[in-house]
Amino acid sequence: MKKLRILVTNDDGILASGLRCLVAELAQIGTVFVAAPDQERSATGHAITMFQPLRAKRTEVPGAEAAYAVSGTPADCVKLAVDVLFPNQIDLIVSGINRGANLGTDVLYSGTVSAALEGVMLGLPAIALSLAEFMNPNFATAASLARHLVEALRERSWPSDTLLNINFPQLELAGLRGIKVTTLGHLHYDNPILERKDPWGGTYYWLAGQAPEDNNGEPTDVWAVKNGYVSLTPIQFDLTNYRLLDTISSWNLQLPKDRGR
Amino acid sequence: MKKLRILVTNDDGILASGLRCLVAELAQIGTVFVAAPDQERSATGHAITMFQPLRAKRTEVPGAEAAYAVSGTPADCVKLAVDVLFPNQIDLIVSGINRGANLGTDVLYSGTVSAALEGVMLGLPAIALSLAEFMNPNFATAASLARHLVEALRERSWPSDTLLNINFPQLELAGLRGIKVTTLGHLHYDNPILERKDPWGGTYYWLAGQAPEDNNGEPTDVWAVKNGYVSLTPIQFDLTNYRLLDTISSWNLQLPKDRGR
Repeated sequence: MKKLRILVTNDDGILASGLRCLVAELAQIGTVFVAAPDQERSATGHAITMFQPLRAKRTEVPGAEAAYAVSGTPADCVKLAVDVLFPNQIDLIVSGINRGANLGTDVLYSGTVSAALEGVMLGLPAIALSLAEFMNPNFATAASLARHLVEALRERSWPSDTLLNINFPQLELAGLRGIKVTTLGHLHYDNPILERKDPWGGTYYWLAGQAPEDNNGEPTDVWAVKNGYVSLTPIQFDLTNYRLLDTISSWNLQLPKDRGR
Repeated sequence: MKKLRILVTNDDGILASGLRCLVAELAQIGTVFVAAPDQERSATGHAITMFQPLRAKRTEVPGAEAAYAVSGTPADCVKLAVDVLFPNQIDLIVSGINRGANLGTDVLYSGTVSAALEGVMLGLPAIALSLAEFMNPNFATAASLARHLVEALRERSWPSDTLLNINFPQLELAGLRGIKVTTLGHLHYDNPILERKDPWGGTYYWLAGQAPEDNNGEPTDVWAVKNGYVSLTPIQFDLTNYRLLDTISSWNLQLPKDRGR
């Protein structure tokens, strides 16, 4: 079998342990290229850098064939890698392993998922990986499972408009209950914004919120991770709400006055 | 009929003409509140600000009941407005009018669309508005049409998981052919990245690309705007690819060794 050529990226930055552990594992089953942000870019969503030039600095990541630190967002990294840094050299994009889960509606904020989505938009299969532990992450088991899953998924094919979003609970292998195929849950945050005063009496705010409540039943991704399963959700990039097209058409909206058609 | 209370936001910043023109028009049919970025935040996607505090500075926007310039992204503005700045005072979120189209897969990059999406995620109906002209925008006709559409849409209801993404061609009213309900097209850019040298020989890159080709047939949003129609696309925030769940389940992925279930 031809050696798999994998682009690894993330949103925690090229120095992040999650990326380093992942590269070390994937280097055992393929040729790994890295293009990742030169600093942490969490919660950047699908941002791209239009009004500043981008730099890509050659660097070293143990296990990687070649690596660049990019002065942009995760989506920038993927665009640059696929078009300029490693043209025609990428078979698969793997983004992560993110420090912290990317579940439910939160995937819209996720630079990790957006990097994978950018890959899919460029026509390449892509996988996003996240570890559901922010404070004390230990990536060893997740990275090993990532290698296992990339090998298993290599034999499958899935539609080119879809990425696979995978979340690992932080558990030893023996403690995991299995792999669940899931839908995205809908997260609700309590107390989403904290208001504070600075030393001079000015008000400022933190986006915060308690850990999201699980008000979803099986088989959402939120439920799966909370219950000790590795969660795998297929995610598409076409946001059109097709079910609603007929309804809205039936509204028969017109331009003002009597000049609409 | 109760006076409509509208939150206006955007990603071009609180000083942008597109927002000012929109507020002036909407103030004729409702009470307008503004929370918009204190600087341009184009192409921020669905970024939120997690690792810096946010500031909201009271300011004036002609026609608005109250206005705040926020030191964050469009999604930050909506979160802050709905939860803290104007709690329980918002019936509808209108984002725009953006300078430049937000069509097809490009909506994933759009701060304008993401602000509206954030509103929908918080349970409020939302509309994103964009003018398909970046270099020499004239917002007068689009703003007037926006008022007309908000009035027309007020009488309709649509599912709470959906926003309406509206793009205006830059045409006089007499030149417009009508309003089309559309799907998101898939944009492909040619020459997406420009490589240049700085005065000291270093390489840098610009995300660029020619105007996207229209390789979509009717009735995509790309087609509609190019052909002189106002385009209206229903957009949902659930990215799950439901069609693929059974396929992936049938792969029967297992944890490594013989300890999977």
